[in-house]
Amino acid sequence: MSVSRPGDARSEISWSGWGDPEQASPLPAGLHRLLRDALGVRGDTPAPSSIEQLALTPIRLPEAMSAELAAIVGSEHATADHTARARHARGKSTPDLLELRTAGPISAPDVVLTPGSHDEVLAVLAHCSDRRIAVVPFGGGTSVVGGLTPRADDFAGVVALDVRRLNRLVELDQESRLAVLEPGLRGPEAEALLGRRGYTIGHFPQSFEYATLGGFAAARSSGQTSAGYGRFDELVLGLRLATPAGTLTLGRAPKSAAGPDLRQLVLGSEGALGVITSLTVAVRPVPERRLYEGWSFGSFSEGAAVLRALVQDGPTPTVLRLSDEAETAFGLARPTELGESPPSAGCLAIVGFEGRASDVAARRVAATQVLTAAGATPVPGAGDSWASGRYRGPYLRDALLDAGALVETLETVGFWSSLPGLYAAVSAALRDALDGLGTPPVILCHISHVYPAGASLYFTIACAQLDDPVAQWRQAKAAASDAILAAGGSISHHHGVGADHREWYEREIGELATAALRAVKRTLDPAGILNPGILLAP
Amino acid sequence: MSVSRPGDARSEISWSGWGDPEQASPLPAGLHRLLRDALGVRGDTPAPSSIEQLALTPIRLPEAMSAELAAIVGSEHATADHTARARHARGKSTPDLLELRTAGPISAPDVVLTPGSHDEVLAVLAHCSDRRIAVVPFGGGTSVVGGLTPRADDFAGVVALDVRRLNRLVELDQESRLAVLEPGLRGPEAEALLGRRGYTIGHFPQSFEYATLGGFAAARSSGQTSAGYGRFDELVLGLRLATPAGTLTLGRAPKSAAGPDLRQLVLGSEGALGVITSLTVAVRPVPERRLYEGWSFGSFSEGAAVLRALVQDGPTPTVLRLSDEAETAFGLARPTELGESPPSAGCLAIVGFEGRASDVAARRVAATQVLTAAGATPVPGAGDSWASGRYRGPYLRDALLDAGALVETLETVGFWSSLPGLYAAVSAALRDALDGLGTPPVILCHISHVYPAGASLYFTIACAQLDDPVAQWRQAKAAASDAILAAGGSISHHHGVGADHREWYEREIGELATAALRAVKRTLDPAGILNPGILLAP
Repeated sequence: MSVSRPGDARSEISWSGWGDPEQASPLPAGLHRLLRDALGVRGDTPAPSSIEQLALTPIRLPEAMSAELAAIVGSEHATADHTARARHARGKSTPDLLELRTAGPISAPDVVLTPGSHDEVLAVLAHCSDRRIAVVPFGGGTSVVGGLTPRADDFAGVVALDVRRLNRLVELDQESRLAVLEPGLRGPEAEALLGRRGYTIGHFPQSFEYATLGGFAAARSSGQTSAGYGRFDELVLGLRLATPAGTLTLGRAPKSAAGPDLRQLVLGSEGALGVITSLTVAVRPVPERRLYEGWSFGSFSEGAAVLRALVQDGPTPTVLRLSDEAETAFGLARPTELGESPPSAGCLAIVGFEGRASDVAARRVAATQVLTAAGATPVPGAGDSWASGRYRGPYLRDALLDAGALVETLETVGFWSSLPGLYAAVSAALRDALDGLGTPPVILCHISHVYPAGASLYFTIACAQLDDPVAQWRQAKAAASDAILAAGGSISHHHGVGADHREWYEREIGELATAALRAVKRTLDPAGILNPGILLAP
Repeated sequence: MSVSRPGDARSEISWSGWGDPEQASPLPAGLHRLLRDALGVRGDTPAPSSIEQLALTPIRLPEAMSAELAAIVGSEHATADHTARARHARGKSTPDLLELRTAGPISAPDVVLTPGSHDEVLAVLAHCSDRRIAVVPFGGGTSVVGGLTPRADDFAGVVALDVRRLNRLVELDQESRLAVLEPGLRGPEAEALLGRRGYTIGHFPQSFEYATLGGFAAARSSGQTSAGYGRFDELVLGLRLATPAGTLTLGRAPKSAAGPDLRQLVLGSEGALGVITSLTVAVRPVPERRLYEGWSFGSFSEGAAVLRALVQDGPTPTVLRLSDEAETAFGLARPTELGESPPSAGCLAIVGFEGRASDVAARRVAATQVLTAAGATPVPGAGDSWASGRYRGPYLRDALLDAGALVETLETVGFWSSLPGLYAAVSAALRDALDGLGTPPVILCHISHVYPAGASLYFTIACAQLDDPVAQWRQAKAAASDAILAAGGSISHHHGVGADHREWYEREIGELATAALRAVKRTLDPAGILNPGILLAP
């Protein structure tokens, strides 16, 4: 058994926006004009203050209780430092970022713990359960659904349990193509550890650079290569969960008929049932070849029909994405060129292949036949442009927020036959809500995850900020969420439930399923300390 | 929406053995000799009596209660008739069949109900919950793990809830390649309804001819073409569950990040959480071409390595099976020729392809390269021979039991790296247990379901019957089950848990997971009427 950890000290994600502040880039001039002319953006949004100046609510947890917790993990791994509290206060949704720009003090955990082992996590949870201290499991902190903002008034205080020290590659089983990995590894850290041995997980969501494996699992992440490698919940074959009531260890085989698949109860549980401390993840050899190409379709529906044909009848590409007319015109598939080039007509698709060179070549030839027969035309350079900008989207949002625009994304998933209705209903609900507030939006959409039975729809919405942009967005988002449920979609394809989707999640699964899930929670977390108000009502 | 049902009246499965009594065939003479010479089988086993002479325990349920139940489903759909009770008394495990051959009265349900709708199922469950009447959901009655024998002493009586009248194809969504089907459809009935429209589910377990879709889902069935089409639990994208506490409706999309995947809590729940009344199942176009070929390997481990290469690196066949040396010598892959031909050397693999003709041809060429490079040699005719005998195995067991042999199968699944240890441990445990009883066994094994991370092992065991063959088998089976857990395997790959595996199932998932599952059961089935003692302790 070989154990390895990432080499370099981990860089912190920007406290008030996305990623590495060094990578932030100013808004292209063309986009500034677009915002002003098309959306009426005024450009007077308050810039975020410094993290030192960010006002936090006072620490509630009595010092004696903090000291007890520090004793469990070691005092060097417990801190009530202002910066640490601020960095664990919010996720990365637009409302989160907007709240960090406001003057008022924002809620934050009382203490940040970084336990170093499964047993320490177990001990923290048991202790917090005894003392009624709420616990927020913290991975990369990249939730965009309010997954880090518990409803904790009824508790003695709030602990952020940051799993960053659980960051080992514990075991690589090359024969079974499985890696045992710890949850605190960020995407690139896990890929680097595996890459040295010739393997990859193949999970590359937009949050890849900062999100952690634990978060991928807890929130059922889906990456940009999901058509080829599968979703993260399909890649997890084993896991260990620390709960206030003890440890769950699940997954002795790829598949089993030994009762319900309880791994699927932990995947998607968003820290409300326990803290994932180990993951057994499917790995594959690092691909010999990666190739991404752009194709243009006359319309979104024509393009969607071809995506469907490819995933139903093959050859299935590794990456398969399709922007609608508006997103294509806006050029969002190539964020680095936004607003600089003339608008493109039609709908842009990205079709990518990864694998052995011979396999990539064969699939590419077969897919090209399907695409050409359907009337699609190649868009030179679009594939590489997408690949080079694939993690840039969230940086763009920061710049747009600075410029006074309200920008956010939301997503859903449904069966193919329901997709046109879902697309129309969500678009109309967003437009009606924001038109009604006097801020007509630009609404862009793409398909980025395809299955034989259906696909995801990912919407990007931009409009001018009102004085209370958080309330403005909540209103539009509620209308979109109602429309998703009414049109038969699921409230989330890969963002998760968090606090923001909880109301709609309970409507989606119904009262009885919610009751069953609450019964599971009562068993694993009798005092209800884990993420109160996240996934389930507190 | 088009609704269709199977045309012909449904034939009853043999009450005391497998399938259609007309299809039963005598044991080949060569096999008789083998049994006598190699295993010391004496050939004096009591033949089953007639169903009329089968002694059943008396009806316990008060007549007034039966009348109330009959009023819910209609009196023509409720019966306490001896034959109906007898036909719902046992599944198709070897202990089940042996018990039907013994003199003593056997437990049987007090009344058999055949409700005609989801609402009737709901009403029956609510009524039985109020009156503390145990309910055994009944599909094809083909459980081989004691899934039809509840621990119902504490209840007022036992109802068999036979879903045979829930047998419609409710909807076919060709765009999403989904069919809404009812649970009482047997495999061939569902395939016939879909086949007329050009579609197939592609799920063909050995029990295909008599098992029902509801059973496939409730017990996480896996078919002989699982490498190509997936397991049944992978094909179910939506379902409706009637429970004493109400209805669960799950599955709005192929995949979702809206919390845990609760479909996976119902799949594998074996009637202990509710009665599945509707399934939304992935379908595919009926394949243009089906092709099965035989290949011979020098050893089981060499063959397993090639199966692993095919499923990990492609091309993945639709059918992929490998018999070990003993099973190959015995010829069990070709049951119609058993004991007639000279023993074969090496290990026989069946490699099959289904799909479009061009796809079958391409995969076959690529697989042939892999197989040939690994030193495998073609076995002419073996593929067709396997295909023509693929549903014959259970008939053979009946003839062997008649001849005085004890024959049973068991199966497990593990990751590839654990498979050699699992194979050795289970074989040794069975051999030690049966040698110790003075009945040295023949133990045959094959791999029939492969995944990138692992594979199933399916054992067939034959020896001479002792005076109490049920106790004899239970002892060997317990030793094998202990060995499975100790070697890291799962207690079942596709047979399920039932009553027979429950003890090991609870050990496999652990106390805390068992408690969580019991909490779900208490929510959906507060009075514990559903399948008491099946899956979970009563």
